[in-house]
Amino acid sequence: MTAPISMYAASVPAFMRALRNLREVLQRGEAHAIERGFEPAVLLQARLAPDMRPLLNQVQMATDTAKNGAARLAGVEAPVFVDDESDFAGLYARIDRAIAYLREFAPAQIDGSETRPVLLRTPRGEHSFEGLGYLTGFALPNLYFHVTTAYAVLRHNGVPLGKLDYLGRG
Amino acid sequence: MTAPISMYAASVPAFMRALRNLREVLQRGEAHAIERGFEPAVLLQARLAPDMRPLLNQVQMATDTAKNGAARLAGVEAPVFVDDESDFAGLYARIDRAIAYLREFAPAQIDGSETRPVLLRTPRGEHSFEGLGYLTGFALPNLYFHVTTAYAVLRHNGVPLGKLDYLGRG
Repeated sequence: MTAPISMYAASVPAFMRALRNLREVLQRGEAHAIERGFEPAVLLQARLAPDMRPLLNQVQMATDTAKNGAARLAGVEAPVFVDDESDFAGLYARIDRAIAYLREFAPAQIDGSETRPVLLRTPRGEHSFEGLGYLTGFALPNLYFHVTTAYAVLRHNGVPLGKLDYLGRG
Repeated sequence: MTAPISMYAASVPAFMRALRNLREVLQRGEAHAIERGFEPAVLLQARLAPDMRPLLNQVQMATDTAKNGAARLAGVEAPVFVDDESDFAGLYARIDRAIAYLREFAPAQIDGSETRPVLLRTPRGEHSFEGLGYLTGFALPNLYFHVTTAYAVLRHNGVPLGKLDYLGRG
């Protein structure tokens, strides 16, 4: 049965799904590298423009957006993930850790967060939101931005992927 | 005052915002072409991989995803937009038309659509959803996919953009 939409229903399940799909897309990239006989980690340094972040960072930022998004909506402090990955295995472990963290949220922690104040500190300044605007105007578009960019880097480098790999089949 | 999240609050305002941001990003691309002295329409045929759609189609698909998404949630038939654009002006008009269409939806048309059946017919087969799963697992990720890919095509072609142009500043 489909329950009514709620802040939880619009966030955590979508975050987990996006990360699961990202993991699949990365696995396709790694398999492609092995099949073609080049070092898979080469893909992790690929980027679409000199001043865009490479694939490795896109994956780190996707996981950060998801875990920090859930934590901010719940009003708790997210664990810091040290950005020390250097290979596909490290990125899979990071994604798995983010999914495990997301799985622990109970709907009651996030439901009702529409007006919860969210303060984002970025290198370009502070942004303050209420929960609903943060979810729909920042967390979701930002997560899909990084997952799509990861997908695009791999497509640009010849990895055979289609949009259903990004959207997921489940 | 922020109202509780609803199917409308999680869809139409986010769709309109994404299209407004896409329009800004495109305008930056057109301005860049003019400044550099090349034909702006060249950018519309740029793509990230030989078997990915070029920028022109990404914009068409973004507008389709948004207008069809709102219509399917409301249980109405969306107008067909003929894919006949060939320049930036045509794409701006298409985006404006999609935003004007979205603006006409009343919250009551979309609220309560969590369990509304949505049947998608694609070249790869039929997909059936309930409204909530359609919104969170298809319409939103698909819309952000096409907007991000449009952004990425322009970045890859040297257009000076940053993620805040994609996320919007409003």
